[in-house]
Amino acid sequence: MRMRESELIDRIEKSLEQRSRESREVRVGIGDDAALFRPRTGRELILTCDWFLEGTHFLRDKHPPDSVGWKCLARALSDVAAMGGTPRCFLLSLAMPASLAGRWLDELLGGLQRASRKFGCALAGGDTTNRKEVLVNISVVGEVRTAHAVLRSGARPGDLIYVSGHLGRAELGLQILRRSREPANPKNSLLKKHLYPEPRLELGKWLAEKRLVSAMMDLSDGLSSDLPRLCAASGVGARLESERIPSVGGLEAARKQGLDPLELALHGGDDYELLFTVPSQKAKFLTRGIQRVKLTQIGHVTEKTELVVCSQSGRGRPLAAGGWDPFQKAR
Amino acid sequence: MRMRESELIDRIEKSLEQRSRESREVRVGIGDDAALFRPRTGRELILTCDWFLEGTHFLRDKHPPDSVGWKCLARALSDVAAMGGTPRCFLLSLAMPASLAGRWLDELLGGLQRASRKFGCALAGGDTTNRKEVLVNISVVGEVRTAHAVLRSGARPGDLIYVSGHLGRAELGLQILRRSREPANPKNSLLKKHLYPEPRLELGKWLAEKRLVSAMMDLSDGLSSDLPRLCAASGVGARLESERIPSVGGLEAARKQGLDPLELALHGGDDYELLFTVPSQKAKFLTRGIQRVKLTQIGHVTEKTELVVCSQSGRGRPLAAGGWDPFQKAR
Repeated sequence: MRMRESELIDRIEKSLEQRSRESREVRVGIGDDAALFRPRTGRELILTCDWFLEGTHFLRDKHPPDSVGWKCLARALSDVAAMGGTPRCFLLSLAMPASLAGRWLDELLGGLQRASRKFGCALAGGDTTNRKEVLVNISVVGEVRTAHAVLRSGARPGDLIYVSGHLGRAELGLQILRRSREPANPKNSLLKKHLYPEPRLELGKWLAEKRLVSAMMDLSDGLSSDLPRLCAASGVGARLESERIPSVGGLEAARKQGLDPLELALHGGDDYELLFTVPSQKAKFLTRGIQRVKLTQIGHVTEKTELVVCSQSGRGRPLAAGGWDPFQKAR
Repeated sequence: MRMRESELIDRIEKSLEQRSRESREVRVGIGDDAALFRPRTGRELILTCDWFLEGTHFLRDKHPPDSVGWKCLARALSDVAAMGGTPRCFLLSLAMPASLAGRWLDELLGGLQRASRKFGCALAGGDTTNRKEVLVNISVVGEVRTAHAVLRSGARPGDLIYVSGHLGRAELGLQILRRSREPANPKNSLLKKHLYPEPRLELGKWLAEKRLVSAMMDLSDGLSSDLPRLCAASGVGARLESERIPSVGGLEAARKQGLDPLELALHGGDDYELLFTVPSQKAKFLTRGIQRVKLTQIGHVTEKTELVVCSQSGRGRPLAAGGWDPFQKAR
């Protein structure tokens, strides 16, 4: 299949233009040297980018292109959620072979379009090139009221540690997919969290605007890899209570696959839930669920800079980072 | 060689932190979920991103890593120049094998740092991952006074067409490099334009602020591919005079390689010069050189939407796009 680069750009523009036109912030979008964006006064901009690469982040023979399109944007938006911000627009860098320019590309753009609409983030521009493997990079511009962004560095000893949702669901989906010989069935509810994650944008924004949280980040590599980052940025330690961690314990599927729910919850990546710390006097303003998202206190921040997981008996063991690190092959 | 992702991020941060600290716009840089950027009032933001991929845009065995670092940023900044803007900060997405984490990475970061300093564009954040091949994606945020950005769409019949610098020099360098069996010698002056292009930031900003130009873009794929884009965006045509085009005609090296200087100038990519149109009554404000950059009128805009190159005898031939298109293998 032969294609000009201009044809690919036209296809992308047509698939995603509706949202771009809806967005008044993007004054000039695709088709010029660069996009023009008008920031609102009293706002800081949130800038983030994310790789989404064939073979590293998805498999062409297992992951539906619709999921690739959805997830590449959703995971980048999760960083905006983690700062307490609102997404505004994104740039799409796409490298792919011309042979995929038919239905595969249509489905990819379809998934991307649905995510773009659902999360209110318009395509502003991008770059395309020809490549044997599919490479995606997404850059997102979000905004947050000046001085309202929540950083990783604000946790203080005594603060309570919370997570949203359940942990380990995405990893469970990935394990099921890995062990299967078939391409993923997008309707399989066990795969949903892995294929179509939803960034916690409303929750992040609410927590930031109400100033309830002292530090926040999203869980992308797994609790055991991400919590140490929050603690290091804040110069603190943490004590987790294993029985409080909202794992996939109730799921027959985990047992069937011989997977330990606590291990999945501690080390599983790709959940895109929020991890945040709350000064204890503010905890009363947090109900167990906000905007239909479950919130669970899983431990507290300590002055001593070590990370400990306690079992029900009170015995503690060090939390060793076992989450996703692309340079560490073994898990 | 084994490496943790956090080590790679530390290396990048240490190499580039000085500029980040110099830049007051980037309030939070590397190390949080996302970067925070404070836009200035009365400014629009310019957003652009660019691939720079091993095998597509550079060859690991031919291109010095220092040039890879310099060029990946310089070419992204050229899009900011083309809008008449000033660069502010950038995001670096870097995928690479751990085996290159020694001197190769140091040199790449060295080139990137020099470009970052020279062009006043601070590292704000990024994403890293492990990959057999080196993949780079750069996203740049620039700014321009509100309503002063120059688009591709403003050219009108009768406007004069100008280019900065000489065209075809980068392509000549690429051809010399391709035909050589050695890695590029960064000190070879014939390769300089190919290895270390300089975006025309001062010129672009000056033209935009003085409101001298009706349309502008940068020459990245070659005049014969880029001019049609400017004309299409403006709904006009163009008539070029071949003997006016500032080619590499005087260079013995082009003759030696059996390359036609006019063909190099028309179809050669990677020059990152500016192509712009000037209403005829404003041409008197353009001297032949501004800020030591040569400016040459090469033709004029026509109402008829076709692109013609005229020889000295006055005979015209259609300008066929022969520049860089990643999806068209043959040149």
